[in-house]
Amino acid sequence: MPEFLEDYREQVDKALEQIMPPEGTYPSRLIAAMRHSLFAGGKRIRPILVLGSASCVGAGPDSSIFAACAVELVHTYSLIHDDLPAMDDDDFRRGKPTCHRAYDEGTAILAGDALLTMAFEVLSDPEMGKPVSPEVRMRMISTLGHAAGWKGMVGGQQVDTDSEGQVPTQPTVEYIHTHKTGAMIRCSVLLGALAGGAEDWELRALRRYGEKLGLAFQVVDDILDMTATTEEMGKDQGSDKARSKITYPAVFGLDESRRRASDLIEEAKNSLTPLDDPGHLSDIADFVLLRRL
Amino acid sequence: MPEFLEDYREQVDKALEQIMPPEGTYPSRLIAAMRHSLFAGGKRIRPILVLGSASCVGAGPDSSIFAACAVELVHTYSLIHDDLPAMDDDDFRRGKPTCHRAYDEGTAILAGDALLTMAFEVLSDPEMGKPVSPEVRMRMISTLGHAAGWKGMVGGQQVDTDSEGQVPTQPTVEYIHTHKTGAMIRCSVLLGALAGGAEDWELRALRRYGEKLGLAFQVVDDILDMTATTEEMGKDQGSDKARSKITYPAVFGLDESRRRASDLIEEAKNSLTPLDDPGHLSDIADFVLLRRL
Repeated sequence: MPEFLEDYREQVDKALEQIMPPEGTYPSRLIAAMRHSLFAGGKRIRPILVLGSASCVGAGPDSSIFAACAVELVHTYSLIHDDLPAMDDDDFRRGKPTCHRAYDEGTAILAGDALLTMAFEVLSDPEMGKPVSPEVRMRMISTLGHAAGWKGMVGGQQVDTDSEGQVPTQPTVEYIHTHKTGAMIRCSVLLGALAGGAEDWELRALRRYGEKLGLAFQVVDDILDMTATTEEMGKDQGSDKARSKITYPAVFGLDESRRRASDLIEEAKNSLTPLDDPGHLSDIADFVLLRRL
Repeated sequence: MPEFLEDYREQVDKALEQIMPPEGTYPSRLIAAMRHSLFAGGKRIRPILVLGSASCVGAGPDSSIFAACAVELVHTYSLIHDDLPAMDDDDFRRGKPTCHRAYDEGTAILAGDALLTMAFEVLSDPEMGKPVSPEVRMRMISTLGHAAGWKGMVGGQQVDTDSEGQVPTQPTVEYIHTHKTGAMIRCSVLLGALAGGAEDWELRALRRYGEKLGLAFQVVDDILDMTATTEEMGKDQGSDKARSKITYPAVFGLDESRRRASDLIEEAKNSLTPLDDPGHLSDIADFVLLRRL
């Protein structure tokens, strides 16, 4: 991970530690389960996108770190619920036991519910993100709700589950990608831009960047699932294929998927041209592509 | 159900129908599961409390119906997740198959997630609740997040699950009641008051009313679970006892529980004295007590 990303990640981890109730807080099993998954060594890509996007419209972490926390809370809840036996039934994530393995299914469901709820609490907390007006915060909450709910991430997860074992088609794989992963990546960029007070033309450029990056992200994930070693992934390699998931390489093949990921990253970076100073967003796009391709 | 409650319920049902995507909307299995549980014949007590509370500070449904929808979305999500095999493992609710029985566990988890997310989308939707300022809406979102999350309903559900089979104690049963059920009842009254532009002294009276009513509500629920027939409850009678749940009658006995419920309703009604016109809130309190006691 490049140094500027490590710096961002430390900022995010510190802020998450501040908003999370400490270990031992009652009900302690619930809090422990929430913390188990939230502090499981995630790369914090989504919150970093919030900070990076805010920064490139001239706003610092005092305006954007609360939104960075909110997207990571939503992301963590989605991982906990996706890993459940009724969904992907994964025992390990990032080399650690998944929430329902470390605790139990009921606690994992509730921990996910609590993290999702907390995201909206954070966005509406008057003690956080003080420079951001109530009008803008409302728009941020609406944007997050849209990206996380049935029109976004949850809808994508449903189609992902429904289509297991079906013949992979381009419309289905594209729906899954744009919704399951793309929506929250795009939302992260938008939340940073909104929190940072972006003008409409800046918002347009950043929305486009977020869209392209979001698509690239899931294509890369699919490729990694097919090619990386179990050790690198911290979960069983090829587990998507084992469950007959509809993936990008399954529809387009590995070479075409690599080319597509690379093109999308180029398009994401090109979307930044209108901006005065794209800051680290271009490097973040490269990082997403080059993770382990 | 008294006629004024039927009127309120129709208003709520109509508003929920307007905000919910119609049957067949893609992803159709997810939407169908959300609708299955949302339109399963609930009494809409919580949204009615929102409307009643707003009305008694002089505000109509144009200010409060969106908040009424939001609390019912949260309530419905909580029922779906509570009914899951990993939690209470209930096959029927209100005489209909629970969400995971009608669909499947994965879909039920996602339908709950989507309904919870939608509650916050509704509260932040600029097209709804137009008379309510962004400042007040922020406070409403914060209030809902607090009541629904780990400090409220989810925390109560966790302790409820954790304490199954344990010796029932007064502190535990009171924690479960104030959090699992009480928090969202109290929140419903508060959201109505906030949406209606309540003054601080009105808010104090209504908060107290909501607290007392919320406690009474769960005591009555516990009594009903012990005494009502399966037909009346639409689920297995005595199912709490079968699972060694910690209930109010288990700690205090049935007679003392009845007395306590009645006292709490009196206290709730007395809390309304400072208000110019408590509207229907007093009758709603009576309805909660007398449902089937």
